[in-house]
Parts: sequence; structure tokens; C-alpha cells
Amino acid sequence: MTTSTTFLGLGAMGTALATAALDAGRPAVVWNRTPQRTHDLAARGAAVAATVAEAVAGDGVIVVCLFDHRSVHAVLDPVAAELSGRTVVNLTTTTPNESRELATWTAQHGATYLDGAIMAVPETIGQPGAAILYSGSDAAFTRHRALLDLWGTSSFVGTDAGLAPLHDMAMLVGMYTMFAGFLHGAAMVGSEGVSATEFTARQAPFLAAMTGQLAGLAATVDAKDYTGAGQQSLRFTEAALAALLRATAEQGVNGEVLKPVHDIVTRQIAAGYGEHGTARIVEELRSAR
Amino acid sequence: MTTSTTFLGLGAMGTALATAALDAGRPAVVWNRTPQRTHDLAARGAAVAATVAEAVAGDGVIVVCLFDHRSVHAVLDPVAAELSGRTVVNLTTTTPNESRELATWTAQHGATYLDGAIMAVPETIGQPGAAILYSGSDAAFTRHRALLDLWGTSSFVGTDAGLAPLHDMAMLVGMYTMFAGFLHGAAMVGSEGVSATEFTARQAPFLAAMTGQLAGLAATVDAKDYTGAGQQSLRFTEAALAALLRATAEQGVNGEVLKPVHDIVTRQIAAGYGEHGTARIVEELRSAR
Repeated sequence: MTTSTTFLGLGAMGTALATAALDAGRPAVVWNRTPQRTHDLAARGAAVAATVAEAVAGDGVIVVCLFDHRSVHAVLDPVAAELSGRTVVNLTTTTPNESRELATWTAQHGATYLDGAIMAVPETIGQPGAAILYSGSDAAFTRHRALLDLWGTSSFVGTDAGLAPLHDMAMLVGMYTMFAGFLHGAAMVGSEGVSATEFTARQAPFLAAMTGQLAGLAATVDAKDYTGAGQQSLRFTEAALAALLRATAEQGVNGEVLKPVHDIVTRQIAAGYGEHGTARIVEELRSAR
Repeated sequence: MTTSTTFLGLGAMGTALATAALDAGRPAVVWNRTPQRTHDLAARGAAVAATVAEAVAGDGVIVVCLFDHRSVHAVLDPVAAELSGRTVVNLTTTTPNESRELATWTAQHGATYLDGAIMAVPETIGQPGAAILYSGSDAAFTRHRALLDLWGTSSFVGTDAGLAPLHDMAMLVGMYTMFAGFLHGAAMVGSEGVSATEFTARQAPFLAAMTGQLAGLAATVDAKDYTGAGQQSLRFTEAALAALLRATAEQGVNGEVLKPVHDIVTRQIAAGYGEHGTARIVEELRSAR
């Protein structure tokens, strides 16, 4: 009899993870707080567990993909006594410290903890481009590699369980700010009747091309030398951002997504760094205000 | 005798534009407020004008690439009487309304106005991927196309002179928010000793891949249907952003770049849209607060 993988949590991402396992011919037992999310997976051959206790009754890997850190405890705490000797792969979005807490809690119950941070959307799980970072137990990472590789490119970034979420969250900040800036731009052109789809035909390739600038910014950040040649000055950036905010207001659009970037640059110019490169913004971010 | 193109303003971008013209064998006369910026171009064969009046004494196109809208007037107002019958191609970053004002002012002095909005950094001028949007005089766009195409892919977006800056600025919002979010992420991993360069090796391809999500967001924005299948809910996004802000604080990093995105999502959930798709953020941006 083949060991079943347990999947706890069947939101869009949890469903994608379980689907990839089933499609690869792996037996799976699935559980979700609201059982209607299990129907499609049952049709693909998953065993549906009515309770968490039933879902973790076997001896396979326990894959957790829930709403947040609190949900993980709400689901696992009642079955803590069943976790001894088991491996928990937690793909729930948690902060680094929350991941470290779960690693400690899991170890206290005799289980092995591997934290996974997914750099993909549910639709791209199992496709080229989907990447998942792991941290925590390197033994668990090695042992279950065949399962993990069904979901995307797997990378182990360290035995500190907090490292995968740290890398992941640092990357998601860029994604969410890019999405918010994109929607701000769509609102601007929309005020003149230009569709978001027409806008995106130019915006998407432009932003993709602009990711080519990040390596240069990174080199400047690492060198901490904001006076080298070829850098766009904070003074130039301030003028550009001020113009963007004026145009935003002229079009009757809400500029609150962009305003803090201008605020930071303005503070740095006031501090005497107007001729320094724009990568210096990072110095204003390094310390919590 | 070949007509010289006049270049007013030799910052990094103005220098790149003049360099591309000279490298293509076109005669150029260049002027800058601080004359040391003219030396490299003189070495490439440019005629250096000591004054703006001298720079515009010929009969070629006048390419303007200055600091801002106010600089354009500061430079052109004293030579307004010389502009009759000439074509001004203004590549200075201006708002749509500032561009419209310059189109009107230029027409009052008998000149033709073409506004250009550059979607490139100086280093990529003349290379594949550099794009410039134009609006204003379609006749000037057609007549000077050979010059314009030296700088990048030229597109004419409308006879309203404000349209090129509007499209451009809407796109730059996404670029600046992406850069700011990237630097926020670099500060986060930097707090654990991870270099920005190591971070960028994952972040840049991830963000480039995520631009593939924009077309889907755009289709939702155009349909104004935030209840369709497959959308990431505002409730899910709020939890993710809250986790990112917690992690940001845990790492001692300043979260002010990301905070307004969370604020918007929180307001929309409070208004009852928690199960709506995250593209609904655009509705909060359409109206200035």
C-alpha cells in the first residue's frame, strides 16, 4: 500500500498543490474547513477526510497550505499528539518569525519541519517558472524532493526555517508594489478613456524590460556608493515623481500609492543627498521609522 | 549644406539623444546651461553653441530635453521670436497639461510642437527595447521620423499633445513603485546579511514573470467585474500584505512604501468587498482623495 500525502487547506494554492500530486499518480488525502472545496479533487481520485484527525491518521508527509499562521495552529494544535515522527511541509504564507515559531512548536511534538515559500500563482504550479524556496530541515527537503519538484523549481536556502519566508516576502513586496503602481497607471489612462488592456500592451513589456535595471541598483546598494557615475540622481527622480504626482492629480486620480516614494526622496534631498543616486532610497528603508 | 539638429539640454538623456544623432552622421548643434556637458559631444563632431540664441539660429529641428516644464520656458521664452516656422520636439518630462500648455505657447509663436515621452533610460537609447511615444503634430512626426527612429521605436498616440506624457507617466508610476518595492525587499534580506545582488538574481526574473499577470488584471479592470472566478480575493491579499508588513517590522525595516497598498485593501474590505478580486484596488485609485 502506497503512503498517501496529506493536504490540509484547499484554497486556490492548496488545490493546485494537491492536483499536481494526484496528476503525478500520487495518492492523496485531502481536508478543507469547508468541504465543497474537496469535490474536484475527489473526482481526481483523492481520499476526502471529514476531519483533520482523519486526514493525518496515515504516515505520509503532511502538506499544510492554510490562510495564515494562526490558521496553522488552529488546525494542527488539536492533532499535535499525532505529529510525532511525521514531516510537516508548511506552504502557508507566514513571516520569518512565525515560521521559526512553527519549527520550534513542531519539534516539541517530535515532528520534522520544512517551510516552503511559493513564488508562483496557483495557475502556474507545476509549470516552468514556478519556484518554491525551502528552509528548515535539509533532511526533509532531500527525502521528499520528488514530491516538491512536482510543484516547481525547488531551492533550499538554509536550515533557519525563517529564511525561505524572508526571501519570499522580500520578493512579494516588489510584486505587490508593481501591481499597485500598474493599477494606478491604469486609472490615469482610464481617465482619458484608454482601456487597461491597451495600456498593458505597453506597460507589461516595459516593466519586464525595466527589471533589467535592478542588477545595477543592487550593485550600488551592495557597494553603498551612491556617488558613482551613471546613477540617476535623487534630484532628477524627485522632479520626475513630482511630475507624476501632478499628472495624477490633474487626471483626478488618487496618488497615495506613489506618494511615499516621493516623500522618501524629498527627505533624502533635504538631508543633502540630492546629487546621490536614487538607489540611496534603500538607506531610508533599512531602519524602521 | 546639411541642416543641423539643435539639442537644448545635455543631461544624461539629452546627451544620449545627441550622441545617437551624431553617430548616425547627422550634424548637430548642442547647448547646455553648464558647458562642460558639451565636451564629449564636441569630440564626436557637434558644434557647441555658447547661447540658446546661437543654438537656434539655424533652421533644423529643435530637440529640447531639459529638467522640467519650467526649464523649458526659461530656455525658450527668451528666443520665442526665433521659433516661427520651426519645429520643437520636446522630450522633457512634463505632465499632460504642461505639454498641452507648451503646444499652445509654441503655436502662438508660429512653431510646430511634437511632444515625446521616452520609455527608456539613457543607456538604452538607440537600442532595441527603447520606445518613445509622441503626440501633438502628426505632420512633424511624419516629417522627422528618420531622426526620431534613431532613438528607439517611435509611436504616435494622438494629436492631443498631452497624450504621450499621459501614457508615459502612467507607465513610469509602475516602474518607480516596482523599484521602490525592490529596494524595500533588498533592505529586508539585507537585515539578515543577504546581498542585494543575490536577492536580485531571484527578484528580477520573478518580477519579469509576474508582468505576465497584468493582462489578466487589466481584463478584470476593463470588465469592472471583480467577482469572476480565479481572482485573488482582497481578503487573501490583505492577509498577505499584513504578513509582509509584520515581517518588515520584525526585520526592523521601514514599511512606508507598502503601507498604502494595505490601507487601500483594508478600506475596500471594510466597504464589504473582501471576496472581490484584488484588481478592485483600481476603483480606490480612480478618484483623488
